[in-house]
Amino acid sequence: MYVRAKCHGVLWVYGDVLPGAVEVMNRFKEMGKKIFFCTNNSTKTRKELLVKSHNMGFNITEEEVISTAHSLAAYLKNRNFNKKVFVIGSEGITKELDAVGIDHTKVGPEHMPGSLQQYLSNHFKLDDNIGAVVVGFDEYFSFPKMTKAASYLNNPECLFIATNTDERFPMPNMVVPGTGSFVRAIETCAERKATVIGKPNVAICEHLIKDGTIVPERTLMIGDRCNTDILLGYNCGFQTMLVGTGIHQLNDVDSWKASDDPELHKLLPDVYLPKLGDLLPYM
Amino acid sequence: MYVRAKCHGVLWVYGDVLPGAVEVMNRFKEMGKKIFFCTNNSTKTRKELLVKSHNMGFNITEEEVISTAHSLAAYLKNRNFNKKVFVIGSEGITKELDAVGIDHTKVGPEHMPGSLQQYLSNHFKLDDNIGAVVVGFDEYFSFPKMTKAASYLNNPECLFIATNTDERFPMPNMVVPGTGSFVRAIETCAERKATVIGKPNVAICEHLIKDGTIVPERTLMIGDRCNTDILLGYNCGFQTMLVGTGIHQLNDVDSWKASDDPELHKLLPDVYLPKLGDLLPYM
Repeated sequence: MYVRAKCHGVLWVYGDVLPGAVEVMNRFKEMGKKIFFCTNNSTKTRKELLVKSHNMGFNITEEEVISTAHSLAAYLKNRNFNKKVFVIGSEGITKELDAVGIDHTKVGPEHMPGSLQQYLSNHFKLDDNIGAVVVGFDEYFSFPKMTKAASYLNNPECLFIATNTDERFPMPNMVVPGTGSFVRAIETCAERKATVIGKPNVAICEHLIKDGTIVPERTLMIGDRCNTDILLGYNCGFQTMLVGTGIHQLNDVDSWKASDDPELHKLLPDVYLPKLGDLLPYM
Repeated sequence: MYVRAKCHGVLWVYGDVLPGAVEVMNRFKEMGKKIFFCTNNSTKTRKELLVKSHNMGFNITEEEVISTAHSLAAYLKNRNFNKKVFVIGSEGITKELDAVGIDHTKVGPEHMPGSLQQYLSNHFKLDDNIGAVVVGFDEYFSFPKMTKAASYLNNPECLFIATNTDERFPMPNMVVPGTGSFVRAIETCAERKATVIGKPNVAICEHLIKDGTIVPERTLMIGDRCNTDILLGYNCGFQTMLVGTGIHQLNDVDSWKASDDPELHKLLPDVYLPKLGDLLPYM
């Protein structure tokens, strides 16, 4: 049996491991199950996610981490991409591109230098060598970045790839925008749809299914967000388990179950548990 | 007869009046027709649009200018809104809010002051008195503005209003993002839909139809963008004319005509002219 678990909201929340999560995942491994940590977080490389996992006590290797930044770099490499990437995102993406030898723009702040007219007349400049626009999580998302992305994407040969489309991260008293909100902004001004790497898209693990590393009918996907994690399970033919330590709760599931919309029925998990650690007594 | 004309792309393009446009509109007025200039541009007040129109030679009054910034302020005033507005936009909006005595936040640059963690821990602060989030064109659109908007909108009682949803402004060798791309970004991270004031929504001129100033069956809407101008005409029961000096061309119309999608058929104008000035010989 194979077990794929989402990280944030299932194994940990920010810096804090969730109760029992380490014990459950390490027990799976001791039992001889293959485990994978699967994250839409594009701000970290596989190596960085590995260090974070080790520091929390998870017994896992780099090959058992599936991340959108890494899968994105693999996607471009597999297409023999040899131009430059315009990156809206963070170093999680640029380090993974560096690791496969793909050239890219710098990440970080790009503020509007003055009025719109000043910007368009004096500051706006495109790089002729750009062949792809990539959109991941970018806390420096800004109007100049949007303008450049939309302008590059006006060339139909320029690739348009998003790491993921998670809408947002609700926190106490605030809502942090997710990558999905940047992607929708660029899709709107570019008048094109992005190719999305992350969950719920099979692209994030297609290579592992193709080479037999993951056998779908013997795989359990554990997640906290139904429109990414559980839907990926549906799309890949995995069994699915929702845990209540993140985005979606049992009342969400009940409302989708009552609906006539077949799309909402794809979000229904096979099993629900309040938290991953609740599995421990049954193992 | 009543004539409503869009400004940018029909009457002028940036600072340049289109050939024959002044003559046609002034001739309409001399013939005793009521004319209105109707713009989704939220960056200017009615007064500023009036000055621009006069400088180009158009014979028009402030009451004959219909603009989203003005209609937005009227919309809030008519609801007796008495809280503060969080504005993503420009002074076109804040000046119209000032004119009706509605309090609002400042517009202009709001850069990300450091890393995400630094921002959330040290800089992020909400104003308890905000009762509405307004999204218009804002060249200083940024991650901090998105985060605040999404956080305010987490309160279901907070109003969410967009001036318009124009996707983009194509220019030679570049694409400038339109208000629609900001609106979709906020709608995604807020997980709510905005109330849209501008074309193609009847809200932009509902008060003029209600009070009898505009009689739909005797009104011609002239526009260059079918999903805003021509669709407004469809929604209000106006006759419609597309001119080819802006966004959409005759080949766009032909492709929609050939489609089976009834939504696309709403975009079909009654009449097409290459430019507004071509009307002159027939007047």
